[in-house]
Amino acid sequence: MERHLDVEINSVKQDLLKMAGLAEASIDKAIKALKERDASLAQQVVVEDAAIDALELKIENACFTLLARFQPVAADLRFIMAAIKIYNDLERMGDHAVNIAKTAEQLTTMSQLKPLIDIPYMGQMVQEMLRNSLDSFVSLDAAKARQVCESDDLVDGLDDGMQRELLTYMLEDPRNISQALNLAMVSKNLERVADLSTNIAEEVIFIVEARSIKHRFGEDSGERN
Amino acid sequence: MERHLDVEINSVKQDLLKMAGLAEASIDKAIKALKERDASLAQQVVVEDAAIDALELKIENACFTLLARFQPVAADLRFIMAAIKIYNDLERMGDHAVNIAKTAEQLTTMSQLKPLIDIPYMGQMVQEMLRNSLDSFVSLDAAKARQVCESDDLVDGLDDGMQRELLTYMLEDPRNISQALNLAMVSKNLERVADLSTNIAEEVIFIVEARSIKHRFGEDSGERN
Repeated sequence: MERHLDVEINSVKQDLLKMAGLAEASIDKAIKALKERDASLAQQVVVEDAAIDALELKIENACFTLLARFQPVAADLRFIMAAIKIYNDLERMGDHAVNIAKTAEQLTTMSQLKPLIDIPYMGQMVQEMLRNSLDSFVSLDAAKARQVCESDDLVDGLDDGMQRELLTYMLEDPRNISQALNLAMVSKNLERVADLSTNIAEEVIFIVEARSIKHRFGEDSGERN
Repeated sequence: MERHLDVEINSVKQDLLKMAGLAEASIDKAIKALKERDASLAQQVVVEDAAIDALELKIENACFTLLARFQPVAADLRFIMAAIKIYNDLERMGDHAVNIAKTAEQLTTMSQLKPLIDIPYMGQMVQEMLRNSLDSFVSLDAAKARQVCESDDLVDGLDDGMQRELLTYMLEDPRNISQALNLAMVSKNLERVADLSTNIAEEVIFIVEARSIKHRFGEDSGERN
């Protein structure tokens, strides 16, 4: 029985990684569409979001079946409970990519405000955080999860810098305001994806620490903020 | 055994309602702090967020124990899986209230841009959506859940109107830009809380429809977007 449960849990892990890969690709394409002013690539992100939603439903049903059939306890149960939150969060990251893509589409009709260097850089950081948060989850790697949490401060700093810089463009010339607000929205969406990745990483740290507390005190408990 | 499970599920329901009540009160206070330029009330929202976080941990542990001890199946299991997503979402709504409170605190140092009528109105709508989404969940009331989804379009429309109005203030006078950006952030945070409530309502519709599909076809399946 235990072997079967492992196979099923592994299948959920693989599907979560696949879902994270799709979300990451969507963010990548949305930023590329923004940078290269490519409305058809932006449209592709919107269309492809259905694949992320379909995978969410697949994983949800797998978790349901797994809980009903194998009735996991202890660490396996904590893992599934975390997985339920994670597919919900990955679906939202897909939505943020769609928001960025829609903004990219709008921006193709406006003149370019400034060379896009910081947003693609921020996009790369956010994609890496997303990838590392999922990797840390499937391998229960608390050190990697901590790296994700540290990167979140950097992304917050980049977003803060972006908002301030865009404010100066707005103050300089009212004709910049529309473009600047659109870029500010992109930065905020990236910052939200970083937050969601950080939530996943915090979950991993919580699971790993609850295990070590359990190991020390012989019961499953733990604190988190 | 079944009686015990019902008692435990009911206790999770009560705690979710309590958590929703705290999140709602936080939003209410944050908007009041904004309207009345009350920095100490804003500070209170930030401090009180710890109670929401503590309740999240309590419900998480209750769900864990419930799944491990009673090994629920079918509708009970769907309910617990939804509850796991919901306490996660309620915690985020608390974070949005904190964001609004922090913005309110900043705005007390600036002159008032415009009379605050629409944001408090939007705040009331969002609080009602939050309350109704939780009510629809604990009573599995699909009709009430659909009302929440419909209200989401209204809140999106209000946010859109706010963003456009604030843009005109920015275009009119660059000295308005800082305040306008802060108010735009409040509106976006309220819109996010409405989105989270809508996710809960969609979950309720999904659970109720999956039940009715199961009833008709003898299996648990369903589609959602």
